[in-house]
Amino acid sequence: MRPVALLTDFGHADHYVGVLHAVIEREAPGAVRIDLGHGLQAGDIWDACFQLRCAWPHLPADCVVMAVVDPGVGTGRRAVVVTAGTRSLVAPDNGIASAVPEASAAAVLDWRRMGLDQPSKTFHGRDLFAPAAARLACGADSRDMGEEIETSALVACPLPDPVITNAEIDGVILHVDGFGNLVTNVRGEDVESSMTATWRAGRTSRRVATYGEAQPDEVVLIEGSAGYLELAVNCGSAAEATALERGDAVVFSRGGD
Amino acid sequence: MRPVALLTDFGHADHYVGVLHAVIEREAPGAVRIDLGHGLQAGDIWDACFQLRCAWPHLPADCVVMAVVDPGVGTGRRAVVVTAGTRSLVAPDNGIASAVPEASAAAVLDWRRMGLDQPSKTFHGRDLFAPAAARLACGADSRDMGEEIETSALVACPLPDPVITNAEIDGVILHVDGFGNLVTNVRGEDVESSMTATWRAGRTSRRVATYGEAQPDEVVLIEGSAGYLELAVNCGSAAEATALERGDAVVFSRGGD
Amino acid sequence: MRPVALLTDFGHADHYVGVLHAVIEREAPGAVRIDLGHGLQAGDIWDACFQLRCAWPHLPADCVVMAVVDPGVGTGRRAVVVTAGTRSLVAPDNGIASAVPEASAAAVLDWRRMGLDQPSKTFHGRDLFAPAAARLACGADSRDMGEEIETSALVACPLPDPVITNAEIDGVILHVDGFGNLVTNVRGEDVESSMTATWRAGRTSRRVATYGEAQPDEVVLIEGSAGYLELAVNCGSAAEATALERGDAVVFSRGGD
Repeated sequence: MRPVALLTDFGHADHYVGVLHAVIEREAPGAVRIDLGHGLQAGDIWDACFQLRCAWPHLPADCVVMAVVDPGVGTGRRAVVVTAGTRSLVAPDNGIASAVPEASAAAVLDWRRMGLDQPSKTFHGRDLFAPAAARLACGADSRDMGEEIETSALVACPLPDPVITNAEIDGVILHVDGFGNLVTNVRGEDVESSMTATWRAGRTSRRVATYGEAQPDEVVLIEGSAGYLELAVNCGSAAEATALERGDAVVFSRGGD
Repeated sequence: MRPVALLTDFGHADHYVGVLHAVIEREAPGAVRIDLGHGLQAGDIWDACFQLRCAWPHLPADCVVMAVVDPGVGTGRRAVVVTAGTRSLVAPDNGIASAVPEASAAAVLDWRRMGLDQPSKTFHGRDLFAPAAARLACGADSRDMGEEIETSALVACPLPDPVITNAEIDGVILHVDGFGNLVTNVRGEDVESSMTATWRAGRTSRRVATYGEAQPDEVVLIEGSAGYLELAVNCGSAAEATALERGDAVVFSRGGD
Repeated sequence: MRPVALLTDFGHADHYVGVLHAVIEREAPGAVRIDLGHGLQAGDIWDACFQLRCAWPHLPADCVVMAVVDPGVGTGRRAVVVTAGTRSLVAPDNGIASAVPEASAAAVLDWRRMGLDQPSKTFHGRDLFAPAAARLACGADSRDMGEEIETSALVACPLPDPVITNAEIDGVILHVDGFGNLVTNVRGEDVESSMTATWRAGRTSRRVATYGEAQPDEVVLIEGSAGYLELAVNCGSAAEATALERGDAVVFSRGGD
């Protein structure tokens, strides 16, 4: 049986996440379940994409992922299943389904074709995505779940790529993590060691290999665990130190200034 | 082996929930465990009842539920096991044990009869309820755990029912969820489509089938995933928009005003 | 296969905890996983030691524990595996590894000897500790994971012991729990019933056996579930009532004042 990983914005104050687990256990008894996180801000599709992209390489090879941040639940937005490498992803077609690499096939989840009861208008996580994930866990073929579509027809992932020119790399902050690290969209391997990161007029950071190289309170640049360059303060919060937020610019340029 | 679902107010800052899981794994190795939630406000029996009632229909058919919000721990309040349909519930007898439908039998948990060490005065979750849940998971008979009592002798669930008259339905808000939705105690199936919901003098909401039908910032009435009517704001928080709180009145009446 | 318990400060807003679970499932498919908690304050080694010490006696006998609060990640601090009774602990050597009783052996985790890829500089939880825990779960011998060291060479646990004299016992508050209970480092069994606890000049608390014996708003002394004496307010928060914090003194003395 394939393991099932869950990522949602359902939080920890309600029974919603517990009910997802219950439905999966009911429909796929004994299936291994992994919580990738349920603390996303309500409706934050961008962050769902970011978290999913970071976690993806570390998941079991045959993992089924259910990622539900779904402000459009009950509207015409599609619910889809995507095959990517040896893994499967069920998600609303709102950008999340495009966040993972190597997608090779996609289908629109069809509750009638799956023989499900008509889903509620407000909780497709429980009524559509969890049953779909459970079936995939049990070995179901995604092509039996609904009409196939081109992966290129999926709503695009909102995470911006950096703009790379001869002179510089224009990045943005993708995520502020729980430690206050500011994760950019620029990969460490794409930046020459001589480059300086400017994150506000006149404010730059140097690159270090480990937190231990930073001076107290210094805002440094470090390659984080997902391969992205991060602004960080050793034993502190770069978010507090800089007042930068998600979406703010970080420019990498050669020498000079 | 039966799966075990857990609902508590123990929060995520301490080891308490982890220890419950550890005890269940120790006493019922390999038993499936499901977290229904641990983020309830400390001592909030009302909310425990609400969450349990909402999750109940979706649990595995043979599930053992351990629901521990227990401000009376160490006092004379009883600890009980309730059989309801094919499921079992262990909980303090403070209203929670009466929150589920179809209860057919109940017994007072007796640590001596169960052969347990004397429980601590402050953590019956660890010392009594988790061992009881683990034994039920392993197939124990609840009648061997203590003296049987009538289900009618259990402390009543505090959740109020709506008051239904010819002219109107007087409901109250049972719960404010993590998205800011205001869940009433009135079921969608009990309200005629022509009825208007008044939630403050002069303030009413119309019924919609999906979030997508709402205007920006409009407070609408929608049937939520547990079947109750909710005040909601699409992509926003009805709690913030209305300043309503749990226990506040929502009146459903026919036409006119 | 041995169960694996996890304790970290990684929080619930990011994918970090989920990735730990994913790595363990990938490397030790089907291993039982138990979350002891991930809500510790960032970098709070003291609290990690406290939580670990409280949970330890209740863990399955053959449990593997992975406790990662690691402000020194990427510096020269050692990562270690400790054998304690029939359980194993993997942790940074920053005090946490010394928090458990009966440690009989220790070794420095060596990614080369374990045949792992070189760990990232910032996420040894994912790249070193979780793989080590997974291998232990599968039956690996800790002596094959790196060079053995004396347990006395581990960095000492920061939790202070009480100072016991003929006249009094000088304790401190080790922890403020989620209910606002103030847990001291003094064990109930070490304090005579005639002793009074003074927690601020002129402010004392009497000992009670259960919360129910306390008067409304009274700050009482009660033996908590881990055996430590706690300042508590029935159905309230002793932390709010007293404004005491972790590290503050509580003195137990005989009669008189």
